Amino acid sequence: MHSGATNGNGHASDAGALPPLSLSILGVEPLDEFIREVADFIHYQISTRPQDLVGAVEVEAKIGILRDRDTGKRLQLPILTETILAPNAIDMRFEANMSAKQHQHYNELLNKLKTTPTSAHPSSTLAYQHLHLVDTFYAQDGGGRGDKVRVTRDEKTGTVLECVRKIRLADLNIYSPKRAADWRISVNLEVPVPPPLGTSTHSRKKDRMRYSHEEFVIDLTQVTSTAGGNAKTEVLHELELELARPEYLLSTAAKRGDANVSEHDRGAFDELIRAFVNNARILVRNADGGWQ
Amino acid sequence: MHSGATNGNGHASDAGALPPLSLSILGVEPLDEFIREVADFIHYQISTRPQDLVGAVEVEAKIGILRDRDTGKRLQLPILTETILAPNAIDMRFEANMSAKQHQHYNELLNKLKTTPTSAHPSSTLAYQHLHLVDTFYAQDGGGRGDKVRVTRDEKTGTVLECVRKIRLADLNIYSPKRAADWRISVNLEVPVPPPLGTSTHSRKKDRMRYSHEEFVIDLTQVTSTAGGNAKTEVLHELELELARPEYLLSTAAKRGDANVSEHDRGAFDELIRAFVNNARILVRNADGGWQ
Repeated sequence: MHSGATNGNGHASDAGALPPLSLSILGVEPLDEFIREVADFIHYQISTRPQDLVGAVEVEAKIGILRDRDTGKRLQLPILTETILAPNAIDMRFEANMSAKQHQHYNELLNKLKTTPTSAHPSSTLAYQHLHLVDTFYAQDGGGRGDKVRVTRDEKTGTVLECVRKIRLADLNIYSPKRAADWRISVNLEVPVPPPLGTSTHSRKKDRMRYSHEEFVIDLTQVTSTAGGNAKTEVLHELELELARPEYLLSTAAKRGDANVSEHDRGAFDELIRAFVNNARILVRNADGGWQ
Repeated sequence: MHSGATNGNGHASDAGALPPLSLSILGVEPLDEFIREVADFIHYQISTRPQDLVGAVEVEAKIGILRDRDTGKRLQLPILTETILAPNAIDMRFEANMSAKQHQHYNELLNKLKTTPTSAHPSSTLAYQHLHLVDTFYAQDGGGRGDKVRVTRDEKTGTVLECVRKIRLADLNIYSPKRAADWRISVNLEVPVPPPLGTSTHSRKKDRMRYSHEEFVIDLTQVTSTAGGNAKTEVLHELELELARPEYLLSTAAKRGDANVSEHDRGAFDELIRAFVNNARILVRNADGGWQ
């Protein structure tokens, strides 16, 4: 219908001569609805967490596969692009495991970033640590919230690094039909507890490569689980992205949208979650298909 | 687990003192998967359009409601954020109609933009035209592709403005559960034809407010349809966003990703579609709920 018309700015037909397009009729990008949903979810979980428990709020994204509980196959929905699933609407489970090949692929990818400064932020390279840990789990005394106590030790020295009760607050599942993997965002509360008595239910060894970048930690872990006694051991490969500093998360969350603080502080929570989602997306998009 | 740690950049706890976060571990925003999918879809339709027909490629987004064919109710899927639906996977129809109240709401919104230059591009205000048109439709002789011929006249003068056969190439439906409306992207071919003989099947009057911005046209139209004879008239309200210059669309599409042209020309198609999607999203997000 509008063939041959020129627009109000007098654009000529030669593409090379055109001024840059505005981002929109409002001159700005519309808000990223996906990132906003994730930020609202995490903020809600932080705001409504149990006030009787003092602990660190852990926010993490795990890379894996959403599986239909009936068929065991990867979830299939009639949609073409990444989206957040409504909680409890679909009978599925999230499998954080990946293949050894996939694990190696991520290892190579992250090692490259470790040594190649990005052009945007040449100083922001990834720091690297190789950790050898042993987790031992204990049933919670007296039931209560029903969560287990986890004791984490340095494998070589046996030093106890952490002794916590981990309480799952909520998950958000992200279906990613264009990629080889899906992902899940979890908000947990890690409450420090005294070393438990009694016999452990099971333990696992973690051979972990940890990459740190600004406010984030990426853990690429080979987990060897033993259920106890003569049970078979199971080897899993996991990739997690975690917010590095729970206290920074809480301080930005408390100031979100607060008219009494600076614009920078008011927006810091959403900026943090934006970078978190960006990093998770980059990890998911670099899944090489070793999962399905 | 990482409570109390500072990261590699030595961030202190005072949020105000922190340097800005990098956009990601790669220093850049990941590609917008949604916009890329739309661009790939439109590019594919352009590349594979019938070569025996010479006409303008029309790309438009309509705002409306996706309805379940069985229940007639708005489609409901177990997802929380805007996503593109797989073609032909769901039994539904798209209803481009909106309420008169909704129509008025958009009219006010767009009139404001007409007179309020955006801060980003102060010169890019919306141009405005009020059009009074009459479309008359004729059955296509001899069947063929089965598409109707449309003759568009100026209502007052009776001058024929356009006489085309409109051939639908493909649609992409976008489900937008957080908003009061969904949307559909359509790619059509408009082939100029000689004025048809015989009796028209039906006609419609279009009272159209047209807002133009750079490469885009937003048509807010009240359509009065008459099916012929003594049939009742029906009044519909439509909102469409259209690419203003089919020849510019084709020229950018031809250079997409071409290593032999400048980076600007190579990326012009994707920039055009980005602004198109941004504008459609802004329109959808300003739906005030008058639909459901």
